[in-house]
Amino acid sequence: MKKILGVIGGMGPAATCDLLEKIIALTRAASDQEHIHVIADLDTAIPDRTAAILQGGPDPVPELQKSARRLESAGAEILLMPCNTAHYFYDAVAGAVSVPLLHMPREAAAALKAAGAKKAGVLATDGTVRAGVYEKALREAGVEPVYPSPAMQREVMRLIYEGVKGRKVPLESIPVRDVLRDLKIQGAEKVVLACTELPIAFAELGLMEGCLDATRALALAAVRAAGAEATVSDPW
Amino acid sequence: MKKILGVIGGMGPAATCDLLEKIIALTRAASDQEHIHVIADLDTAIPDRTAAILQGGPDPVPELQKSARRLESAGAEILLMPCNTAHYFYDAVAGAVSVPLLHMPREAAAALKAAGAKKAGVLATDGTVRAGVYEKALREAGVEPVYPSPAMQREVMRLIYEGVKGRKVPLESIPVRDVLRDLKIQGAEKVVLACTELPIAFAELGLMEGCLDATRALALAAVRAAGAEATVSDPW
Repeated sequence: MKKILGVIGGMGPAATCDLLEKIIALTRAASDQEHIHVIADLDTAIPDRTAAILQGGPDPVPELQKSARRLESAGAEILLMPCNTAHYFYDAVAGAVSVPLLHMPREAAAALKAAGAKKAGVLATDGTVRAGVYEKALREAGVEPVYPSPAMQREVMRLIYEGVKGRKVPLESIPVRDVLRDLKIQGAEKVVLACTELPIAFAELGLMEGCLDATRALALAAVRAAGAEATVSDPW
Repeated sequence: MKKILGVIGGMGPAATCDLLEKIIALTRAASDQEHIHVIADLDTAIPDRTAAILQGGPDPVPELQKSARRLESAGAEILLMPCNTAHYFYDAVAGAVSVPLLHMPREAAAALKAAGAKKAGVLATDGTVRAGVYEKALREAGVEPVYPSPAMQREVMRLIYEGVKGRKVPLESIPVRDVLRDLKIQGAEKVVLACTELPIAFAELGLMEGCLDATRALALAAVRAAGAEATVSDPW
């Protein structure tokens, strides 16, 4: 009997759909009934995570805990949270429920380590970067993190907020290749897309080569944790 | 305050993601917080609907009702069911909860009527066709339904089960253009894609012209029912 997954989602809603699609694609199944039972809570009442960390915006923890409890009550046996920045609040969310909560940055770090990377570029929101969410997970896995220069980091934020979340500017108008070059110059062997909005943009731009999709790493970990057979052996 | 949507999903899981994406795309929102709160239950324990109607397979009603109640308990205020065939069991599912359940075939029929169609082709599973799910909804809206010939209907079933659900055969290998020609010869002015797997295939094949995506009609109705502002005025 496979376990029921619960997704604390809506951060943003498109990133939650992206995770669901990856779970479906990574599950070996030939009929509806062979897939994993997933309950996804696209809880758009969760305040912006980056704003909370950097600008003293509303605390997302109470609503994240409400979502976690809602999913547990509905029958979810393993929780996951498709928002990297939200992992800054991991302990408070995991502590609110009695079922396990998977940890996306740790899953991504494990995949980078398994691929032999000693140094990895981190593309994430300002909140994730400054909160040290990936810094800690990567160093624990023996991978040294490198970050975009301040000017390039502003472009990453534009890509996330105006390109994907707001769909206000065309993705092609943002110099993403320059961002990747900047990381390579600093010695990054691989790059982790450490914001759930980024794989959506990178896939559209055809720039996934050498980039680890943290969402995909989480999806693969979830498929295995649920007890289903995966279609691949690693998330690359 | 927008209402919370609950999705009785997993029939199949990809079709549920497709509905979620359409709800997101059809909602006018510039940030995560402006989107609609949606709880999606991808309940893959729901038995095959077509098999139940045509071959006396396991009854999906108890599990559909469980999913509806699970969503109501979790806080959903309006339910929707992204599976056309499942609407054969609409009354039993709607009767199990005290919140309203939107009706996809009726939403699609309303959109066909609004577009001035007097005769519409119905592409659906054998279960949906023989159960008369669209027959009833279309006639109530004053639209005459026409169906593919038996040989063409077999191709529609192959497209749904082997092409989309199982990903066993390439979509291009199925003569979908012949199916559309067959309906046109019978006088169909428009075609309704009355199985949630079909818009996925038709979009990939670039054949959406003149076809109403019942999933999109349901998504638009859901956005309005939730009290959010829609990005379009009709689902075509």
